[in-house]
Amino acid sequence: MKVANLVGQRFKERPADCVIDSHALMLRGGFMKYVGNGIYSEFPALRRVTAKIENIIRREMDAIDGQEVLFPVVMPASLWEESGRYESVGNELVRFKDRNGSNHVLGMTHEEAAVQLVREYAQSYTKYPFMIYQIQRKFRDEARPRAGMIRVREFTMKDAYSFHTSQEDLDKYYDICFQAYNRIFQKAGVPEVVTVKSDSGMMGGSVSHEYMLLTPVGEDSIVICDECGYRSNMEAAENRVTNTSNGTKELECVETPDCKTIEDVCTFLKSDVEFSCKAVVYQKNADDKFVVAFVRGDYEVNETKLRNLVGEEIHTAEITDGDCLVAGYIGPYGISSEAEFYIDVSLKGTSNLVAGANKEGYHYTGLDLERDLTDVTYVDISKVKEGGICPCCGKSAITIKRGIEVGNIFQLGTKYTKSMDMQYTDENGKSHYPVMGCYGIGVGRLAASICEACHDEYGPVWPISIAPWEVQICCLRSDDEETKKTADNLYKGLLSDGIEVIYDDRGVRPGEMFSDADLIGAPIRVIASPRNLKESSVEITTRDKSIKAMVPVDEAEEYIKNLRNQLFADIEEHVEPYK
Amino acid sequence: MKVANLVGQRFKERPADCVIDSHALMLRGGFMKYVGNGIYSEFPALRRVTAKIENIIRREMDAIDGQEVLFPVVMPASLWEESGRYESVGNELVRFKDRNGSNHVLGMTHEEAAVQLVREYAQSYTKYPFMIYQIQRKFRDEARPRAGMIRVREFTMKDAYSFHTSQEDLDKYYDICFQAYNRIFQKAGVPEVVTVKSDSGMMGGSVSHEYMLLTPVGEDSIVICDECGYRSNMEAAENRVTNTSNGTKELECVETPDCKTIEDVCTFLKSDVEFSCKAVVYQKNADDKFVVAFVRGDYEVNETKLRNLVGEEIHTAEITDGDCLVAGYIGPYGISSEAEFYIDVSLKGTSNLVAGANKEGYHYTGLDLERDLTDVTYVDISKVKEGGICPCCGKSAITIKRGIEVGNIFQLGTKYTKSMDMQYTDENGKSHYPVMGCYGIGVGRLAASICEACHDEYGPVWPISIAPWEVQICCLRSDDEETKKTADNLYKGLLSDGIEVIYDDRGVRPGEMFSDADLIGAPIRVIASPRNLKESSVEITTRDKSIKAMVPVDEAEEYIKNLRNQLFADIEEHVEPYK
Repeated sequence: MKVANLVGQRFKERPADCVIDSHALMLRGGFMKYVGNGIYSEFPALRRVTAKIENIIRREMDAIDGQEVLFPVVMPASLWEESGRYESVGNELVRFKDRNGSNHVLGMTHEEAAVQLVREYAQSYTKYPFMIYQIQRKFRDEARPRAGMIRVREFTMKDAYSFHTSQEDLDKYYDICFQAYNRIFQKAGVPEVVTVKSDSGMMGGSVSHEYMLLTPVGEDSIVICDECGYRSNMEAAENRVTNTSNGTKELECVETPDCKTIEDVCTFLKSDVEFSCKAVVYQKNADDKFVVAFVRGDYEVNETKLRNLVGEEIHTAEITDGDCLVAGYIGPYGISSEAEFYIDVSLKGTSNLVAGANKEGYHYTGLDLERDLTDVTYVDISKVKEGGICPCCGKSAITIKRGIEVGNIFQLGTKYTKSMDMQYTDENGKSHYPVMGCYGIGVGRLAASICEACHDEYGPVWPISIAPWEVQICCLRSDDEETKKTADNLYKGLLSDGIEVIYDDRGVRPGEMFSDADLIGAPIRVIASPRNLKESSVEITTRDKSIKAMVPVDEAEEYIKNLRNQLFADIEEHVEPYK
Repeated sequence: MKVANLVGQRFKERPADCVIDSHALMLRGGFMKYVGNGIYSEFPALRRVTAKIENIIRREMDAIDGQEVLFPVVMPASLWEESGRYESVGNELVRFKDRNGSNHVLGMTHEEAAVQLVREYAQSYTKYPFMIYQIQRKFRDEARPRAGMIRVREFTMKDAYSFHTSQEDLDKYYDICFQAYNRIFQKAGVPEVVTVKSDSGMMGGSVSHEYMLLTPVGEDSIVICDECGYRSNMEAAENRVTNTSNGTKELECVETPDCKTIEDVCTFLKSDVEFSCKAVVYQKNADDKFVVAFVRGDYEVNETKLRNLVGEEIHTAEITDGDCLVAGYIGPYGISSEAEFYIDVSLKGTSNLVAGANKEGYHYTGLDLERDLTDVTYVDISKVKEGGICPCCGKSAITIKRGIEVGNIFQLGTKYTKSMDMQYTDENGKSHYPVMGCYGIGVGRLAASICEACHDEYGPVWPISIAPWEVQICCLRSDDEETKKTADNLYKGLLSDGIEVIYDDRGVRPGEMFSDADLIGAPIRVIASPRNLKESSVEITTRDKSIKAMVPVDEAEEYIKNLRNQLFADIEEHVEPYK
């Protein structure tokens, strides 16, 4: 491929609306084009990257006995009614009527389709275990698409579904898939992807892991213990807090005029915020009933954990005059019995607290939960903090990092097989529901994440295994006969060696040629110029600047082949064999 | 892959609702599964077939300098409003609102997305010509999905778009693409696919061709001249009719009670139907105004040609009392001036006709159009008939065949570049709209069509280039140690040779094993059995029964490799090189 013919324009200016570098670089490099909110087209350069990622995934799925299938993007609503998700999933599920008025959905995930496909096939225990997967487009009507290909509405996803006759068998396969996922990220050149425990959310099931590419611009918070290696998604991380007593005082109701936040109150009362009880108020989606979360003043509520505890959907409350709660002055002592409330573990062992008095303009001081309330139960509904206690090793060694979720694996259990009545008969003729696992990777998001992890200020530095081209030849003076001939010959030679080359013989100025090459990001660059040829050499560099060599023209092809093989070997070195 | 592990069940009974064989066999063979009206999932066996077809297409598109891209399935309505198709396309375009109430469509074709992708890139003549293509899911809300994968609502399609600075350049590339398409069908093992002229319909543009796989169960009629090779889709075929005079009589209004059809009238009047003038009545969608098509009594109206002539959408009329037309008695003489009417070429040169008298219960006899009407213009709005005159060579050698459309190519002209304001600057700084071509192949439909063209009563006979597996090994007695060992060794040996093998060692009875192998349809079959091994041989056959040989065990692997290569060579032999 010649740069002159490559469809997709490159440009210098960083688009104003790009929050993260990979988004800006993938637009500037002619990789992708905005079509609509969270909807992009892929230019040829990106399509080459995503095709390579798809093939890495495909090979690894096949290696663990996955069988590729294809489910439809559009499904009849009746299929999603079987699992109950037609009702339970929110706005992110697109629902529409066809020409006959029948309800349909756009697939955002395919558990229902997977069960529907194999329900008749897998009626005997002899058919188990098996795994099916597809690489297919999905649409999820995200409220806030952002960061280019990181959070989009339409995307290509590899989704796999495994079926088992026992939890033990699922555990075994889950572990194999866990390894396959590591290998996929290693092969894609990002061995630094880490796994974290995660919350299963609307997918159902219990055990689940997310694969996180650590990067400061990630939208997920990851809880990591530097001592024991414990890792968890913030949503799923257990919070442990050890409190020391603040002494004992009598409960006293004091006036706290114009103090609406816990910080205001503590400042006004000259009290430490660690010895305060903060109220965060939600309402149940179903009936708007209030749910109050009490956490230590310096902690935040973990809404996922709270939601799981409440057992239904909740949203941030709007409190108006006449409600049973007094906004800004809510506390656990004397709270209205109409409100449901939970007390977080961060308040355990505290004493002498500042808390709302449930009366406009007043707070209590000296509150001692276990003394002043009856039947105090502590629940874990707060977010872990930097420096917090590791729930695994107990040391105060928690750090919080940011990451992009590039894959996830779930143990689904029998949620879908039960609701959709998929059963098999065992050796003794008895019927059971098979247990399922599901395993997803977003292809475009992985491409963008790798760009985010591997770039400099000039462009992407693609790992060779997923680079759009392996080698870029820059012919610095295509009007110079010898230079052009040298570059042409190298181009033809490398192509016939089966190496993927992008060739720039446009005759543009070196500055433009190099900045374009940086934006394309091929790992190996060859520069043919009259100056180099005076030494009968071409210059060969790597995009990451680790190698820069003058190589005699007649050795260049061999040098490039070896360098290419070495770069692949460097990647393979990080790929862990299956245990 | 072992049959024992292959996801997808095979069964004996032909499903009642299958009209064509390929549909029945692809269900019975565990290739596809019904999900909803016109919506299917692909089992692993079919996904292997479609993946091979996709790769054949991909290689050929790359060979003619196509660059693979990816457009989204979901597009904002605004994009389709630019081209005007958001309004002009009917119910087959799915429209829906996202969570914010914005209108979106599901891509049924991607001209708009193609123009949007390259509009900024291709602003200079130096960028032309170029072609981009994708292989992507599409949704078209067909009124009547039928015949399994032949006419579905959701499908995988390769759609390509080329851009040119002149009609001549488009013509040149169109011809190259024409050849690429022939090569694709040849490589897929169906060299009998023919090209026909077609009507461009809603795609716009002028020149277009369809690729038709001839089969009696095809839903399209194809007009073929046995003398000169002229081929056309029925919709686009010019009808030529030579009439001889029926003598001259005076116009006479006669009573024709209870004669509602032209056949009734001719029988009643003892007149030949060839000397009658039949009225077929439509109404314009926009204002319900009547449009009457007059054709010779033994011809049918070609609605596509009529629609193109009228220049707007029409539908079959409903005539009620009080309308300006009298149902069953409509004729060109004395017809209400409120109705628009057209006289077909099949009536040219006729005389002494029977025709409606525009009066309940009466017809005219002796009608002579050119004598009795003023300003008669003949237009071509009728369907060509078997034995008709070829518009190309003029001989009466037309035959009508049935076919399945497996691909199409269109010259779009500037329809989309003009409406979406895509322009480029030429050498002299002048702006122009580029001309476009577009080129489509439905992947699943091609798979089903090949199954339709290549099957026997027992199952598909897949061409080796797209077969789910190249070789099927049947181990007839897996409980016999030697047989099992022989089959196992062959399986391992062939796999290590890179041959795609499906291995049946289930220990089922020979009847079930063979009928399953027939349904899977691998082109080469190897049978290991104690009886064959008495002669130290295995039996090797081809699915099409052309080869049946006993081959010594120690020569079997080599024999199979050679046979496989020969089957590929047989296909390659039919692949025409580019001119």
